[in-house]
Amino acid sequence: MARILSLTLNPALDLTVRLARLQPGEVNRSETMLTHAAGKGLNVAQVLADLGHQVTVGGFLGEDNPQAFEALIARRGFVDAFIRVPGETRSNIKIAEQDGRVTDINAPGPLVSEQAQQALLDELVRIAPGHDAVVVAGSLPRGVTAQWLLTLLLQLKGQGLKVALDTSGDALRAALAASPWLIKPNTVELAEALDCPTDTVTQQAQVAQRLHLQGIEHVVVSHGADGVNWFSPGTTLHATPPKVSVASTVGAGDSLLAGMLHGLLEGDQPEATLTRATAIAAMAVMQIGFGITNDAQLKRLESGVVVRPLTEK
Amino acid sequence: MARILSLTLNPALDLTVRLARLQPGEVNRSETMLTHAAGKGLNVAQVLADLGHQVTVGGFLGEDNPQAFEALIARRGFVDAFIRVPGETRSNIKIAEQDGRVTDINAPGPLVSEQAQQALLDELVRIAPGHDAVVVAGSLPRGVTAQWLLTLLLQLKGQGLKVALDTSGDALRAALAASPWLIKPNTVELAEALDCPTDTVTQQAQVAQRLHLQGIEHVVVSHGADGVNWFSPGTTLHATPPKVSVASTVGAGDSLLAGMLHGLLEGDQPEATLTRATAIAAMAVMQIGFGITNDAQLKRLESGVVVRPLTEK
Repeated sequence: MARILSLTLNPALDLTVRLARLQPGEVNRSETMLTHAAGKGLNVAQVLADLGHQVTVGGFLGEDNPQAFEALIARRGFVDAFIRVPGETRSNIKIAEQDGRVTDINAPGPLVSEQAQQALLDELVRIAPGHDAVVVAGSLPRGVTAQWLLTLLLQLKGQGLKVALDTSGDALRAALAASPWLIKPNTVELAEALDCPTDTVTQQAQVAQRLHLQGIEHVVVSHGADGVNWFSPGTTLHATPPKVSVASTVGAGDSLLAGMLHGLLEGDQPEATLTRATAIAAMAVMQIGFGITNDAQLKRLESGVVVRPLTEK
Repeated sequence: MARILSLTLNPALDLTVRLARLQPGEVNRSETMLTHAAGKGLNVAQVLADLGHQVTVGGFLGEDNPQAFEALIARRGFVDAFIRVPGETRSNIKIAEQDGRVTDINAPGPLVSEQAQQALLDELVRIAPGHDAVVVAGSLPRGVTAQWLLTLLLQLKGQGLKVALDTSGDALRAALAASPWLIKPNTVELAEALDCPTDTVTQQAQVAQRLHLQGIEHVVVSHGADGVNWFSPGTTLHATPPKVSVASTVGAGDSLLAGMLHGLLEGDQPEATLTRATAIAAMAVMQIGFGITNDAQLKRLESGVVVRPLTEK
């Protein structure tokens, strides 16, 4: 069991509404409306907790509506290192209609001041020691620059933590300069951040080679249902997930990341690590939520994962 | 200053989203998203507090998301007599587009058990004495019957409180049997509850006469921008509000009710009572929210209200 910090700089309150058909301009009655605390780092934290790890969660939280987050933190026994900032944590409304159409309405989050950013850095100076690894996942809130993200990652590395990063765009591009221990982009995110094509395995291997040289040990490239490519100096593997019926892809990438961290921190064999991580992601896809709800089912999913060296292709 | 109980049996968390144009099936980015504790009884309570009264608020509140309500209650110095019930208080999403189109998505509230209903009746046995009047406003939550509302009103009357009721449909129809002291339907609500036409002043006067005979003292019939008809055994008055630019009609009816209660409980002259109530409602229409934000402006609005005996028409 490891002690892991999981940071969500831009969490969201997900409000999922189900109704027969959305009629714009009318009064619609929803069948159900569910609120839950969301954010990539928090999702990763929950799967890590399912895997038996001790997790500290942090980032920035609007002080006007922290309740769903505080309830989740209490329920999962996380240590709370979130810095409270004035205003409301953003809400993301998902309107799901009977025919499968989903309309998203995403709100801007609170503006995170320089003082709040410094407060998080100070808090991490205090609490990061004693953790084995840190996950930094998701987008940046208003007021936080990619340059500040780089500062954060450099500080965490300087504190001796293994840094796993899951972000995209400018944030990923800037953060690569901190040479995180592990990154988990999808193909598009990787191509965007590096400004070079990453469509083929050969292209990805070349990019991964460059990243290894600058000190990024693990490059995990996710392709959704097509599986995962994992490049590390000693190992390059591809995993194909079992075919499952898709309930919702929410949390699948976060589940993959949690599974990879678990195997790496436990010192498992690479094949076993990637197999379990892929199975946990498949399990997320089969549920509306995510998480390890059934160990026997996870075993079955693991036996359906096919892992092979990438060079064989 | 009076001590007033204001009950909201089915409160809602209003989530107002503003965006340029709602694109169904797409990821929409909202400009602002604001959550606030809502419900007719709570709206009335706030205007009563603006008018200087001491207010106790109660009803049923979902225990999973009480925070916005508790913050409002603390901010306004209300006494909290809400019974907490399992689940989330319903959310009503209002999607406001640039062109003025508004899409509502209203969620079902929590199911209120018989135990919770009894708990509210018990709580009111304890706390109702010492209050001068009670407002019961809004719809009924799932699990609560119109018959139970009648029981509630009869208990409150039995406890010696003046009962002001603002509801509609089956709930209003059943509750009339308790002969509340004051009701405030609009024309449509009145016609529905009594199964008879109430389009003309003569028809309304006939209906009011019947209601007076059964013990309902004040029948306040609102017509939006066309004003208000107020029937009581001694007085029948019509008020025409001043012309104002409409920002939002949210809380206008609740403001009218609060203003009427204020004048009646303070023993003001009928004309002064109706004038002030109509002006407070007009002030609500001019704002996105409601409430008495500016005494000088309220005075100006009062001077724009025209009150005349209904018989003059």
